[in-house]
Amino acid sequence: MAASLRALVWNENVHERKNPMVARIYPKGIHGCVADALVLDKQLEVHAATLHDPDHGLTKAVLDETDVLIWWGHAAHGEVKDEIVERVLARIWQGMGFVALHSSHYSKIFKRLMGTSCSLTWREAGERERVWACNPAHPIATGIDRCFEIENTEMYGEPFAIPTPDEIVFISWYEGGDVFRSGCTWKRGNGKIFYFAPGHEMYPIYFNPSVQRVLRNAVRWAAPDSERWIDRCPQIPISEAREPLQHKGPRLHEGGEQGFR
Amino acid sequence: MAASLRALVWNENVHERKNPMVARIYPKGIHGCVADALVLDKQLEVHAATLHDPDHGLTKAVLDETDVLIWWGHAAHGEVKDEIVERVLARIWQGMGFVALHSSHYSKIFKRLMGTSCSLTWREAGERERVWACNPAHPIATGIDRCFEIENTEMYGEPFAIPTPDEIVFISWYEGGDVFRSGCTWKRGNGKIFYFAPGHEMYPIYFNPSVQRVLRNAVRWAAPDSERWIDRCPQIPISEAREPLQHKGPRLHEGGEQGFR
Amino acid sequence: MAASLRALVWNENVHERKNPMVARIYPKGIHGCVADALVLDKQLEVHAATLHDPDHGLTKAVLDETDVLIWWGHAAHGEVKDEIVERVLARIWQGMGFVALHSSHYSKIFKRLMGTSCSLTWREAGERERVWACNPAHPIATGIDRCFEIENTEMYGEPFAIPTPDEIVFISWYEGGDVFRSGCTWKRGNGKIFYFAPGHEMYPIYFNPSVQRVLRNAVRWAAPDSERWIDRCPQIPISEAREPLQHKGPRLHEGGEQGFR
Amino acid sequence: MAASLRALVWNENVHERKNPMVARIYPKGIHGCVADALVLDKQLEVHAATLHDPDHGLTKAVLDETDVLIWWGHAAHGEVKDEIVERVLARIWQGMGFVALHSSHYSKIFKRLMGTSCSLTWREAGERERVWACNPAHPIATGIDRCFEIENTEMYGEPFAIPTPDEIVFISWYEGGDVFRSGCTWKRGNGKIFYFAPGHEMYPIYFNPSVQRVLRNAVRWAAPDSERWIDRCPQIPISEAREPLQHKGPRLHEGGEQGFR
Repeated sequence: MAASLRALVWNENVHERKNPMVARIYPKGIHGCVADALVLDKQLEVHAATLHDPDHGLTKAVLDETDVLIWWGHAAHGEVKDEIVERVLARIWQGMGFVALHSSHYSKIFKRLMGTSCSLTWREAGERERVWACNPAHPIATGIDRCFEIENTEMYGEPFAIPTPDEIVFISWYEGGDVFRSGCTWKRGNGKIFYFAPGHEMYPIYFNPSVQRVLRNAVRWAAPDSERWIDRCPQIPISEAREPLQHKGPRLHEGGEQGFR
Repeated sequence: MAASLRALVWNENVHERKNPMVARIYPKGIHGCVADALVLDKQLEVHAATLHDPDHGLTKAVLDETDVLIWWGHAAHGEVKDEIVERVLARIWQGMGFVALHSSHYSKIFKRLMGTSCSLTWREAGERERVWACNPAHPIATGIDRCFEIENTEMYGEPFAIPTPDEIVFISWYEGGDVFRSGCTWKRGNGKIFYFAPGHEMYPIYFNPSVQRVLRNAVRWAAPDSERWIDRCPQIPISEAREPLQHKGPRLHEGGEQGFR
Repeated sequence: MAASLRALVWNENVHERKNPMVARIYPKGIHGCVADALVLDKQLEVHAATLHDPDHGLTKAVLDETDVLIWWGHAAHGEVKDEIVERVLARIWQGMGFVALHSSHYSKIFKRLMGTSCSLTWREAGERERVWACNPAHPIATGIDRCFEIENTEMYGEPFAIPTPDEIVFISWYEGGDVFRSGCTWKRGNGKIFYFAPGHEMYPIYFNPSVQRVLRNAVRWAAPDSERWIDRCPQIPISEAREPLQHKGPRLHEGGEQGFR
Repeated sequence: MAASLRALVWNENVHERKNPMVARIYPKGIHGCVADALVLDKQLEVHAATLHDPDHGLTKAVLDETDVLIWWGHAAHGEVKDEIVERVLARIWQGMGFVALHSSHYSKIFKRLMGTSCSLTWREAGERERVWACNPAHPIATGIDRCFEIENTEMYGEPFAIPTPDEIVFISWYEGGDVFRSGCTWKRGNGKIFYFAPGHEMYPIYFNPSVQRVLRNAVRWAAPDSERWIDRCPQIPISEAREPLQHKGPRLHEGGEQGFR
């Protein structure tokens, strides 16, 4: 691992501006709270960006220098520009890690990565949640014993319309009787993806030490593990076939031509 | 299985109109050739639609009565309306099967289902392809012994930028020295998805009896296996929690409110 | 699907013989209760076998005529003969479905199929369990709305040491605060495998109508979907290579020889 | 990553003793050749062991100090003691990496990890093999461009009876017209597993620089990523339930009792 891993915390930062209660809970914004949690890991270099920054703070230059992107969105999913969604997706496929938090299950980027509706059930009752590690030795669960509790939470429940995860790291138990796959991993291209359910804007969940520990673990886990993969769809010239090859039959494309997209 | 399984063959039908050689090879269009292959299975009720039909022939009523959609696109991926892409995706998540053929790896729908770039390498040299069954007892390989050959093909080669398939049914060997995962399955929501690489417009590949057999197998395999899943993201009222629950703490959402999308 | 699907319910039948309370709850044995649940599906032809039958009731002839094997074991895992374990595994790889119930997570066959330790946590307190469908439209969840309850159950909890399931059909919530992946699918060779956690011998759980519905669904789901795959590891003679091939260099094996095992 | 990663190369070392041609090709044994390839990575501390060492060189103490075990077997799979197979499996589940080479597809350990028959087709003709990277940015493919060639190889062909790999890193093309999933990954417990097909004893394949590069990459990739997971199947006392719980109904097990195995 490089001496420094660059994490970028993105937040739509809408509730914090409009709702005084959210502003009181998260005076530095959810992004500020998450960033404060990450900098406790000295290996991490932490930046933040929000919806209202130029290009949402997600220029190509910024993304090129980001190893792991942490995403929080809820009320303004639709305001994220499609062009920037494509830019982020391309960077994930190259290898940038992506950590989707809480209501980001419905963000444009996460839905594009999953290929499903990403719907779930929910209830805002301030009930107790207990987050169980399905594999206590998974790197994302490091430092969590067998489970941890969140005293007041928004319930996210099954059915959760996702493709089968590569690994389920956490499953949540709720006081009201529901369950949820609250920590799941996937890989898309070379990007490692982690979805983590805890984190409602109306409760101080991102101040919970166990939640913070998981966030730090997840950034380390999602770090790119290799060189970048530059996506192309190249035509291989006949003369460069690995076995000697003679052209046969008709052709639609000229040699050197690009394919359709 | 119902006595009748309804298959809809969709084709952009562009090359057939513009390129006389394609028109000679596929006088009824690629969709016509594929439909002729499918009707040999008496269990199948087969329809066809093209890009130029109203709503591309993919109205909600049509999709509601379709069990499996077979898709062929190449030159006109960009002309498929986004609104119809969403409509097809929603129906796939409900359980409609989806069979993506050849250059449809770059169709909007397939890319949305995969969540990756779906890029590959390619070469149009008319070389020989041998399609191997990785599991000769897979229902999609029924009737194929260990492999079959296509005398003249367009090469599609690795790396193929897809998420790990649920199952790899076929891998292709090419005369020019390349390989490709040419038959792969996934599930998204309740929709079963099969990608099948053979099928260039410049060669009469859809007349190949083994290719036709695979197409019929794939439609049967992709049939919905249960009731429809209507996607929602419901708020569960506190009074309907399965365990007795008292509301605690602040709320962002009123009871009965819809969540953000 | 054939007009008739042949299910074989296997039970070690030890607790029923030794423990009067179990005998009172399951007077026909657990196998008898499960078989009674299955015969309500008129498509099923149902048989039963136990540890004490000759060859444990699992002769090659019996297995050859079995489409889906349902397994219940607990106190006598070690008494199941290794030779019969191998026979069952070979038949599963050919395509026979396998439904492992409750404490069968530790059966020889299930551990061999998984390749992991299959350990879990447990508590015998008669607490309430609520079984949630992660995908209410999955064929194994047909007829289950969103969840069902078991009033008195043995808790099986995470971490459950299994490989990532192909699909998680059910997750259980427990009164005592735990969660468990209680309905999971895998495929090994051509055999479809379903693990279903409910079913302690000290509670009448197999009389629960929802549990019985899941059992019937699971047998239908696990039905073989194609011809049998006869496992071999054949040497391909050089003269039968698909491309013309001349022998080069030294050989360890003579033509026609079998490989090492 | 720790400053030093401990790799143990295990070889049955039978052909080298019995067959003069193998002995000439691998004068230090296959294990010696592979070990020489690994020590080129200065991060690796490399040891070797063979079938004929006491306990096959796989005592508990040795395994406890091994991070990644590389395995080569062919003629003597049956001579590996079951007790040692269990010991190795338990260590893999704790997190030790396992790299299975060539004919080790039929080793007891690999078959136990997979849960399938692991059969394949084969031909010993000295033909050419071209190994394609399905994802050139995968850490196991680092330093391999798009493919590499082996001039004389034993063909291993599909169908390969394995469970769906987590990732397919390599697919091989053969001169004789076959294909094979020649580089595959899985996870069992916390152990990362890589199967790599190249490596017949009658050809100097382990001297090939690209093969050696893959071996070094694989050891790094398979390194344990977290603390050890000690497998247990604990009874959770009712008094330690996370939610207050009263015992209800009958019990089979006394508090503190171990479950059946």
